[in-house]
Amino acid sequence: MGAVATGPIDLARPDWLAGTQSPRDRLEHYLGVIEARETEVRAFSALNVEGARQAADASTARYRAGRPLSGIDGLVIGVKDNLETLDMPTTFGSPIFAGYRPERDSAIAFALRKAGAVVLGKTTSTEFASSHPFHDTRNPHDASRTPGGSSSGSAAAVAAGMLPIAVGTQVIGSVLRPAGFCGVLGFKPTYGALNKGGASDAYSQHTLGLLAAHLADIWAVCHAVASFVGGDPGFPPFRGGALPADARRPDRLAVVETAGWAVAEPGAREAFERAVEAIAAQGVEIVRRADCARLDRLEETIADARTISLDICRYEGLWPFSDMALRHRGLMSESMRHRVDVAEAMSPDDYIALLDRREAMRSALLTLSGEVDGFLTLSNTGPAPVGLATTGNSIFNVPASALRVPAISLPLLRVDGLPVGLQLLGFPHQDRALSSTAGWLLGAL
Amino acid sequence: MGAVATGPIDLARPDWLAGTQSPRDRLEHYLGVIEARETEVRAFSALNVEGARQAADASTARYRAGRPLSGIDGLVIGVKDNLETLDMPTTFGSPIFAGYRPERDSAIAFALRKAGAVVLGKTTSTEFASSHPFHDTRNPHDASRTPGGSSSGSAAAVAAGMLPIAVGTQVIGSVLRPAGFCGVLGFKPTYGALNKGGASDAYSQHTLGLLAAHLADIWAVCHAVASFVGGDPGFPPFRGGALPADARRPDRLAVVETAGWAVAEPGAREAFERAVEAIAAQGVEIVRRADCARLDRLEETIADARTISLDICRYEGLWPFSDMALRHRGLMSESMRHRVDVAEAMSPDDYIALLDRREAMRSALLTLSGEVDGFLTLSNTGPAPVGLATTGNSIFNVPASALRVPAISLPLLRVDGLPVGLQLLGFPHQDRALSSTAGWLLGAL
Repeated sequence: MGAVATGPIDLARPDWLAGTQSPRDRLEHYLGVIEARETEVRAFSALNVEGARQAADASTARYRAGRPLSGIDGLVIGVKDNLETLDMPTTFGSPIFAGYRPERDSAIAFALRKAGAVVLGKTTSTEFASSHPFHDTRNPHDASRTPGGSSSGSAAAVAAGMLPIAVGTQVIGSVLRPAGFCGVLGFKPTYGALNKGGASDAYSQHTLGLLAAHLADIWAVCHAVASFVGGDPGFPPFRGGALPADARRPDRLAVVETAGWAVAEPGAREAFERAVEAIAAQGVEIVRRADCARLDRLEETIADARTISLDICRYEGLWPFSDMALRHRGLMSESMRHRVDVAEAMSPDDYIALLDRREAMRSALLTLSGEVDGFLTLSNTGPAPVGLATTGNSIFNVPASALRVPAISLPLLRVDGLPVGLQLLGFPHQDRALSSTAGWLLGAL
Repeated sequence: MGAVATGPIDLARPDWLAGTQSPRDRLEHYLGVIEARETEVRAFSALNVEGARQAADASTARYRAGRPLSGIDGLVIGVKDNLETLDMPTTFGSPIFAGYRPERDSAIAFALRKAGAVVLGKTTSTEFASSHPFHDTRNPHDASRTPGGSSSGSAAAVAAGMLPIAVGTQVIGSVLRPAGFCGVLGFKPTYGALNKGGASDAYSQHTLGLLAAHLADIWAVCHAVASFVGGDPGFPPFRGGALPADARRPDRLAVVETAGWAVAEPGAREAFERAVEAIAAQGVEIVRRADCARLDRLEETIADARTISLDICRYEGLWPFSDMALRHRGLMSESMRHRVDVAEAMSPDDYIALLDRREAMRSALLTLSGEVDGFLTLSNTGPAPVGLATTGNSIFNVPASALRVPAISLPLLRVDGLPVGLQLLGFPHQDRALSSTAGWLLGAL
């Protein structure tokens, strides 16, 4: 089998009709990689090979008839296991739900099928997309290391070449962190842009995202999902376009240190500074907190983003997790039990004060609107740590979650031969502008 | 059995310990009324008599030990059947879910049990709390008439004296409308104030509410629920206080005609105008659209509230209802099937335009903040219509939903001997101020 194209089939160049690039051919390619790598990587909690083959054949037939369902018809994709699927078990990453079969598809699984995508498998998630990994998914770059979490399997599957793209979710750092550790693209759109119905929770920072090898695939999926099921109720659906915007060199980028900078490993800091120098060398003005009072103010407000976000999510998890703990406490991790206990001691007034502090972060960010084209920081404090018991530090990822802005982790840094992500954050609802800058960075570094 | 007090037990006056007012005694009183009335009214989709007796006995024991769990310990309550309950079937009002047993409690059911309330039964809901009644619940004031919907059973059960209070939900008019038709109090707090986790949908106008005989019970339940599970993720929990504010005559109330006025029955219009005259006669300044350009502007923006709200909810229901229709279309009502078809033809841009129009309504309302103490209108175009196939007109109820403001239907009007609601709307997050005016109106009319 020759090289396999990723992304949707280009109808304007239907040479695949004579070759090995039909949706079914592409699927078989990925099945071959899974055969070779999955025993080691363990990225999937479930596979539906037969269903995927049927879906791929149906897609092939639609292309032959000239009637694909969408721009992602035939695209092979995985779905994180904290999202309900009708045809595969959904465990939410928890032993409480071992073997659970929902009687519906989550919004995104429904949308993907409506769009003709080939949903091949469920990718592992930490427990309820929170911190504890009950899985043993490994980093494809070094099997002794974590892939990160909570979208562990989605990042690992893409990094191992077992999927071109996979759905993830982020509340704290669950897309950007594993993308960085695994050396793949990880995109988290503006909060609410993709319908998260059928996910394990409804946290007010919980955003669907994508982990992938190519920016074009990410954009095509976001566009198709928004077209078929919209975003979260009350929020504008993704409007970043069907394709990424043309790559364009930004005029000004701000460096945000975040609370992560103080704890980042020297190698990661050096790799980041070299990247910033290379960007500046190509004519982009770099703004730092020492140069700009408003940026300094933003840094001050986001310094506590992690604590604030964790407490917000604990409170928002009072239900369903306290209810669940009544019957299943013994099947919850120590960290989940702790969360429940902390949440039960919080009051509505505590929560309102946290919401106010989160809103202050967002206001501080908006003071820079029109001043800079985006924000650069690291995605990780260093390469993925050794061991599978934890999923690494999320300190660099949480500001994008708390700010509810679009952000992308770009696989552009290496430390000790291992991937570390370069993170680009944008302004709310400016997902399309982010793609333009991201595309430029991917070409320029 | 003597007269039965409603509301929480007053610990400062524990004379019930010697009498017939223990939580168990109260429960037995309501069970007696159910025995007498339920065959005709048909307000319940399920009852858990044994569980309720155990809960009431446990509550009695807690009071005897001087350790009640909350201000609503022992309160007998019903929960609308579009909300999940662990101990009773949850049908969401749809034959698709006949006999369905969720493996968890909804947030409000969980909170009520944590607070020590006695959850006696599930009250009937129209199909997915939308328009079609698969039930045959009747109006206790005239069994040939609808109780209204979608919180049909909650309103009917309270009106028949079978419950002191019941949980409802409102997206369009589902608390205020049946409250008016059944002559009970119906309160819908500010959007997001009570956690709706475990409800049949997540519409951006979907708000939990209460139907009850007494304002004090409503406030006590809202306070307890917010204390135990908060509000919707990202929104401030209810902060109206543990008791209603002291009744206080407002300085100025605005009359809002809404699109309902043009189609209201003459008898309802006359009853409303008499009430407004009586209010004015007690020294309240009444503001009308002819007197106030900002009020006139508000009326203009809310004129299309029903169409806008219905389309917003159709779009937000793309998932799960389109997914459900793939397997269960034959068990959906004609109106649900129509909804799905309309939603599938809508685009993200259509939805964004609708959100903008809804936001414009809210902005128009806020221009009157500080100018008036609240807004008066009807809850119904007339008494409940004859027949059980539809649940009546919601035209007067939808502005409060679209504006996401607190609103209450007061059982203060009669037309042809049947109840019609007087509706009071407040400003966002000013639920406590609303209770002060509502309390005054209840005493003054």
